[in-house]
Amino acid sequence: MSGKEIDFKRYIRNIPDWPKKGIMFRDITPLLSDYSIFSAVVDSLCGDYSNDSIDYVAAVEARGFIFGGAVAERLGAGFIPIRKGGKLPWDIEAVTYSLEYGVDKLEIHKDAFAPGSKVLLIDDLIATGGSMLASCELIERLGGQVAGIAFLVELTGLGGREVLKNYSISSLVKY
Amino acid sequence: MSGKEIDFKRYIRNIPDWPKKGIMFRDITPLLSDYSIFSAVVDSLCGDYSNDSIDYVAAVEARGFIFGGAVAERLGAGFIPIRKGGKLPWDIEAVTYSLEYGVDKLEIHKDAFAPGSKVLLIDDLIATGGSMLASCELIERLGGQVAGIAFLVELTGLGGREVLKNYSISSLVKY
Repeated sequence: MSGKEIDFKRYIRNIPDWPKKGIMFRDITPLLSDYSIFSAVVDSLCGDYSNDSIDYVAAVEARGFIFGGAVAERLGAGFIPIRKGGKLPWDIEAVTYSLEYGVDKLEIHKDAFAPGSKVLLIDDLIATGGSMLASCELIERLGGQVAGIAFLVELTGLGGREVLKNYSISSLVKY
Repeated sequence: MSGKEIDFKRYIRNIPDWPKKGIMFRDITPLLSDYSIFSAVVDSLCGDYSNDSIDYVAAVEARGFIFGGAVAERLGAGFIPIRKGGKLPWDIEAVTYSLEYGVDKLEIHKDAFAPGSKVLLIDDLIATGGSMLASCELIERLGGQVAGIAFLVELTGLGGREVLKNYSISSLVKY
């Protein structure tokens, strides 16, 4: 079964008022635990990319790692972890970005890849696009080229696609 | 190249005094970023397991997710995330376990799998074995059977193997 024939929303659980009142949380754990669906998502995230068109797959912890590792494997690409502040042990490049309340920090190892490398970014969900924009900045500061960005879930209406308008974006499910 | 022919240690960076003085940190990011090595690790973590012998792969965030998702994909199994406290949005089963200072909590969704399911646990590293023992307890509380546990790195001399003596354990690299 190819991803185009599957209604992935059937495998995403809607949880009202989590993590706080007024938020409808999209829980992907039922999708992950169904092998054929998980596999179809990984396929679909790979899209038309190949190991000719990208050198690395990068993803942000923690849920991004689940898909990022599998997509890297499938595409024959290396995997680059982007982590929250203070987790990476070597020389890092860091970007601070705004959250609804306060700020957060993402980091990448400075020697993660050679300048000129083509990097596909993967995440489970795009909302405001803040963490993904920060991730793109990290890739570019190291001289990398953002070959594309693929999300499983897109929450439209929060401005994420506009924030990332300079990049080639795809998403498999929209709310 | 099969995993048996590769000296994975060559792709693991040793970082003294991180995260604190006296600790030699084993940094796997060089291994992740080299596709052929990452792929060989995923192969080796699969070991002799097949989609006949396991139903699910489970892993603990965050580094465990990188390998867990890829191993699940490779074996044709569903993926079950085990998370730190407060991250999972549905009904959870929780286990608290001791750290060097204080305690930590791991959680799994109560409906993660049907009782009787065979689960392969994956993590990047075993030290004292505390978080993996807690993970096994979560699987068993839900009526699952721990089919095996596969680590990339084993820090011997910290008692982890003894703590997990009731389970079938493998590791690819020992320090």
